[in-house]
Parts: sequence; structure tokens; C-alpha cells
Amino acid sequence: MSARSHAKVLALSGGVGGAKLAAGLDGILHPGGLTVLVNTGDDFEHLALHVSPDIDSVVYALSGRNDIERGWGRADETWQFMGALRELAGDDWFSLGDRDLAMHVLRTQALRQGEALSALTARAAAALGIRSQVVPMTDAPVRTLVHTDEGALAFQEYFVRRKCVPRVTGLCFEGVQRAMAPSAVLALLRDPALAAVVLCPSNPFLSIDPILAVPGLRDALSACEAPVVAVSPIIGGAAVKGPTAKILRELGHEVSPAAIAEHYAGLLDGIVIDEEDRDLRARIAIATCVTRTLMTRTDERASLARSVLDFAATLRDTPAVRGGCKQMRQA
Amino acid sequence: MSARSHAKVLALSGGVGGAKLAAGLDGILHPGGLTVLVNTGDDFEHLALHVSPDIDSVVYALSGRNDIERGWGRADETWQFMGALRELAGDDWFSLGDRDLAMHVLRTQALRQGEALSALTARAAAALGIRSQVVPMTDAPVRTLVHTDEGALAFQEYFVRRKCVPRVTGLCFEGVQRAMAPSAVLALLRDPALAAVVLCPSNPFLSIDPILAVPGLRDALSACEAPVVAVSPIIGGAAVKGPTAKILRELGHEVSPAAIAEHYAGLLDGIVIDEEDRDLRARIAIATCVTRTLMTRTDERASLARSVLDFAATLRDTPAVRGGCKQMRQA
Repeated sequence: MSARSHAKVLALSGGVGGAKLAAGLDGILHPGGLTVLVNTGDDFEHLALHVSPDIDSVVYALSGRNDIERGWGRADETWQFMGALRELAGDDWFSLGDRDLAMHVLRTQALRQGEALSALTARAAAALGIRSQVVPMTDAPVRTLVHTDEGALAFQEYFVRRKCVPRVTGLCFEGVQRAMAPSAVLALLRDPALAAVVLCPSNPFLSIDPILAVPGLRDALSACEAPVVAVSPIIGGAAVKGPTAKILRELGHEVSPAAIAEHYAGLLDGIVIDEEDRDLRARIAIATCVTRTLMTRTDERASLARSVLDFAATLRDTPAVRGGCKQMRQA
Repeated sequence: MSARSHAKVLALSGGVGGAKLAAGLDGILHPGGLTVLVNTGDDFEHLALHVSPDIDSVVYALSGRNDIERGWGRADETWQFMGALRELAGDDWFSLGDRDLAMHVLRTQALRQGEALSALTARAAAALGIRSQVVPMTDAPVRTLVHTDEGALAFQEYFVRRKCVPRVTGLCFEGVQRAMAPSAVLALLRDPALAAVVLCPSNPFLSIDPILAVPGLRDALSACEAPVVAVSPIIGGAAVKGPTAKILRELGHEVSPAAIAEHYAGLLDGIVIDEEDRDLRARIAIATCVTRTLMTRTDERASLARSVLDFAATLRDTPAVRGGCKQMRQA
């Protein structure tokens, strides 16, 4: 623990799965040591409110306010607003809890007043006592569009309304070409104190790829001195939650950590896979750490976070391995 | 009852006190017989949500959803949103209940999409099963400004934040010169089937005057054939609720139904005062009906509504009295 008392870590995260590991990292690092760069491709306007599902998942997880049973939203949530909305014949396909609403209302107010999403996010995180930096991947509006056999669907249409049923044929991130990466994150990627970059076990297509598509971010990650490590969201041929396995299959990939490593080819120095997938190790071309990756209990977040950082430290201290990775990056 | 089975009635109302009588009238008239013209001078933007306190009070009262104990907002309300808002260091001086929020969110969404306040209000009222017409005094933004010894205050600043403590020196209704009266209400005022116009026992300065200030409305009321009747919000030298008595005093008036009759001089054919004020009858220059006006129980709303309409009917049937009023109007 003392070794990482002043370590800096950057984590890339989508919603629920990623947020769990981010919370684990937050718990074992010194205050301010963790920066979580969060996907905003899922953001959307609903009932004229600006909803940032992944930012909220991260903020709720890092402040201990997330609902563990339900897997999204706030703990001890109530739903009086939704009941009243239905009475009034309002759009009720997307559930907004009474407590959760405070975040959407404040965010909408801030954005309408010209405040940046990043500034509002920092303010909210501080108000909830979060010690880490929670940073949206960009302040510009980026919207993930899911191309399917039913046509192009806005992310929430695909994810919530159509429950991920349509077959995915591709994805694009509208507006990403004009997006700017957060300067603090670009600076962090050049900081010699950066100990590791962690790609959380989020959906690679829906949660991590939008972040990597922000101009400059992928290059800055490739160029950074610190080891870049992914945690596989696939365990034993299935995703812990969400449509990762389904999308891998639909896009013609194998449903395994090997496909995850391949997806991030050129970017990773190592990958963390579950014990259940130990046998696949030989098929993965980069450094691989085998450990228990399922985070069911809260203490499992911290222990996975420890394993990930320990693994990253071995990659940093082993020039041969990093050399191997650099080669792979150029491949 | 059969006599008024097809009667049309127009009620002018502010929030809570007025809404009670409007609910009484709604209960005894045939479906669609009542039109409630509601003050919007109290409307304001809070947390980037459009709040219309008086419209909501009327809609909640007419749909049986108002909180009788608290006197404002919805019955069975919960306050989880406010708790979460405080955690996030949001502006919490104005309380928004979880159920109540649905109305503000829907209204804000509708207005941002270009829907008129009147259209949204009609839609919400219909969704809640209201049979009467609830009509905002105008679709244009009008904002009541309270001039006080502490300077000019926006209505909610005066009413909620400063709890009506500053001494009122005058009022103005910003934007009212550009406001248009609802054409349906102007048509109703020319309709021979209109049996009565009722000025509900709302604050004359803060709730009824903004309505009367909408260009064309006061003239149309003066010109209408139906009797115009006010119910005094002052009983026994005090207001049932709110700052009516305090403002009367601060503006140099006596705190009595006589001052209310005087305030509406030129407009009224009659006034309904409480039994407690029976002795003041001689000092009121227009037709006066003495009855119990306090609406503590729900059944008292209907019985006051009946008394008011019966009184209005006598004014219609007694040309001498109306003649007297017409003279007074010209005075």
C-alpha cells in the first residue's frame, strides 16, 4: 500500500461494471490519486433533462451511493416522480428515481447556464465527498449511434427501449470529431508519476471505444510511459452484465478475453482475465494476469484493484514485456 | 342544481384560497361548465424548471390531489429529491416534492419544445381527469415584481425567500403590456350562457390584479352581461392565509371586506363576505351576500360555491342592482 501512496492512476470507464473497479481503485489510492475518464456517448436529453448515465454510475459508485442489487442508479431510491409522470401521460420508458433526479436537474441547470459538463461533474463529485477526479471524456456533445438490422438507433433507444435486441452491425460516435480531450487527462498521460492506465471491465464497443475516439486520446495513451492494462469484461464466454457478449458475436468475434485483447491491440501492455479463463492465456499475445475478476461483494472491488495495479507495476518494471508491447502496438 | 346544469361560470383564481373555491364550483357545475382563469405572475424558473405555482394549486385542487394540511403542493408528497439536491449543494430554498416535480419537468419540456403554457395546462388537466377548463391568464411571460422598502423583489423572493417580511410599497407585472388574453375567455365573457364571473378569495394584489392587468381582460369583464362577484379573502380583519392583510395595511387600506370591494370598484356587481363581518355590510356600496366563507372542510367549498352562484343569480335577475353597479363602474 505504501508503494502506491502517491501513485497516480487513470481509469477509463463506462457505467456499472467499470464503475465498480473505479470504486475499488478509489478505495486503495491516496486522495486525488485516481482520475476516472468517463464515457459520455450514452448521454441524452430525456424530458428536456440532460442525463449522463455513465458519469452518474461512477459518481454514485465512488460516493458509495450506488444501488448494488439493481445494478444502476442510487441506493434507497424511490419512484414517486415516475408515478406522477405516468399519471400526467409523460414519457416513462426511461426510469428516473426521485433522488437521482437531483443530479439530472442540477446538470441541466448548469449546462443551460453555460457551465461545462466537466465543471459540473467536478462540483457534484466534490459535494458528495469523492476524493478522486471524475472527468467526462469531453465537454462536447458526443452521441453513440448503434447501427443495427433495424436501422441506426440512438444509444438509449437501443439499450433501454429495444433492450439490446436488434443485431448490431456497427457503431459510430456522432460529434466525436469535433470533441476535445480534457487537457488535465492529456497532462496526466505525460506525467512521470502516472503508475498505470486501466481500461475498466466496461463494454469495449459502447463504453471504452467512444473515449478512445476522442481526438488525441488514443495517441496519448499509446505514447504514455505508464503501462496500459485492460480488465476483461468477458468471463467464461459471457459478459457479467449487458450486451458485450452479444455484440462481440454479432460483429464476428469470439466471446473471450482473447477477443478483448485483440480489440485493444496496439494499445495494451497487459490484460487481466478471470481464473475461469486461465486456459485461454496461451492464446493471448500480451502479458496476462489471471485472477478473480468478478466483483460481487464490495471487498472484491478493492482486491481486484490491487491485483490490477500490482500487475501494472510488474509491466513497468519489466522492460522486455513493455518492449514486446510496443512492438505489438506498431503491428 | 338543475338550474345551473348548463350554466357557464368563469372564476379568476390565484393559488390556494382561490383554488378551494374553484374546486367547489367544479364540483357543483356540469362537466366543462367552469373555466378557471389563473394567475401566472408568480411563475418563475427554478433550477431551470418552469414552475407555475397557481396553476398547479388549481390543477391539484380540481383533481383532488392537493395537500389540505400543508395548504400547497400534492397530497402524500415525498421529499427525496430535495434531500439529494441538498447533498449536491443545489439551490434548496424552494421546496419541490417528488410527485410535484413531474409537473414542472413536463411543463419545462413542453415549453422548450415550443408548446404553449395553455396547451400544456389543458393536457395535464385532462390527464388528471379534470372536467373544467384551467386557463393561464396568458401564454406570455409575466412576472410580478414586488416593490418594497428593501427594493424590488421578484415574487418568489418576496413570498418564499423573504417570507413576506419586507414592507410592500407597490407592485408591477413585468411583461403584462405585451401579454394577450386567452381568446376562449374573451369569447366566454361575451357568451349569453355565462351565468357569473367569480373573483375567488385570492390575494387581490398578488393574484387577481395580474389577471386584470392583461390587456383587454378588465374591459371585457366590465362589459360582460353576467354578474361579476368577488368573495372576500378578508374575514374578521385578517386573511385566512398569506399576506393579504399585511399588504392592505402597508398600502394604506383598512383590513376589511369593504376595502376589497373598494379595490375592485367599477368591476363588481356584488361581494360575498363572511358572517363575522355582517356589521360591515352597511359600509359596502354594492350588493353584498353574507354567508360562511371559510373553507376548512371539503364540503364547505361546495356550499360556498352554491351561495356564490345563488347570489350571482339574484344580481342577474334584479336589474336595479345591476344598474347601480353599472353606475358605480362608471364612477
